[in-house]
Amino acid sequence: MNSSEIQRLIQLLSRLPGLGPRSGRRAALYLLQKKESHMAPLIEAINNAFQTIQTCQSCFNLDSHKHCSICLDPKRDQHTICIVESVSDLWAMERSNTYRGLYFVLGGNLSAIQGIGPDQLNLGALVQKLQDQDFQEAIFALSATLDGQTTMHYVRERIAPYVKNISSLAHGVPVGGELDYLDDGTLTTAMTHRYKVA
Amino acid sequence: MNSSEIQRLIQLLSRLPGLGPRSGRRAALYLLQKKESHMAPLIEAINNAFQTIQTCQSCFNLDSHKHCSICLDPKRDQHTICIVESVSDLWAMERSNTYRGLYFVLGGNLSAIQGIGPDQLNLGALVQKLQDQDFQEAIFALSATLDGQTTMHYVRERIAPYVKNISSLAHGVPVGGELDYLDDGTLTTAMTHRYKVA
Repeated sequence: MNSSEIQRLIQLLSRLPGLGPRSGRRAALYLLQKKESHMAPLIEAINNAFQTIQTCQSCFNLDSHKHCSICLDPKRDQHTICIVESVSDLWAMERSNTYRGLYFVLGGNLSAIQGIGPDQLNLGALVQKLQDQDFQEAIFALSATLDGQTTMHYVRERIAPYVKNISSLAHGVPVGGELDYLDDGTLTTAMTHRYKVA
Repeated sequence: MNSSEIQRLIQLLSRLPGLGPRSGRRAALYLLQKKESHMAPLIEAINNAFQTIQTCQSCFNLDSHKHCSICLDPKRDQHTICIVESVSDLWAMERSNTYRGLYFVLGGNLSAIQGIGPDQLNLGALVQKLQDQDFQEAIFALSATLDGQTTMHYVRERIAPYVKNISSLAHGVPVGGELDYLDDGTLTTAMTHRYKVA
């Protein structure tokens, strides 16, 4: 019954995480009913993001430059690297304000069920980075799930030859919990009590 | 810590109804991590909607033409008009598939608390439409809230000189409920049992 343009907008908004068909309709109406004040700014923001945001060639974070602002920040500890699963986990670590080194985004966890093997992760780039730069410590900040811990043990074997100290977030991370959903206090505790795994 | 482009995108996505800061971040990442498959289609859809969707000059529905497809459909009953509060309520009526006449979108309810008076509604256009066209019946499909019923009684007085039969959705609509949230069965029952108010 709606015009195809409205239906298509509702369809794509409904696919956003957290939205469904009903909230997709509400979001579409919110935009359509105030086109100048609600829709135009979103169009501009999404276009800007589309044109400028790219994957950091050094750590796989997202930023508006080839190398992200964290990699380029000379004030950050250049000898510590924190290995996270995803960009959202990197953002969660940054919000906790407990870490001032560099990052590396693996791009996922090993998962037999989802068919994600080592080749789907950015493992080659990680090993290369550890060979090229001089890191004193690598810290695993992976989810305390079965897949996350499996991933940590696998990646640890691969990077052990290139970095002396390898540690992991303390098990203040609730077992079964995902990093993106933790409060900052728990993340800070876990970072403070990180323990050696190799 | 994020680039300004990402922050702005998160900020605007967070304002969509049903989303907050956390789900706004998730939605932004969903788009940024699959730019070609997720972000590009949304940009196209939102641009198309922005350029084509306009308010129907006859009934205040939203469509890609000056006059919406419901107003232009010759198969619909041209002598019955259904008065709704908003476009989302019009969509809810259409989904219930129980009504085949025309519509008129008031654009809100009278509300002393929110400071919405008769001048903020499309009342002048409604009276004009009822004078210009020959309607046998006007059906109020307003929410069964205090504001909705107040609006019905006020608008009824204004349109009574121009249309013979004025009815309202039956009180199968649960008291305090809003139209957009009803299941189709309830809407069908309410449409079948509409009662005369003048």
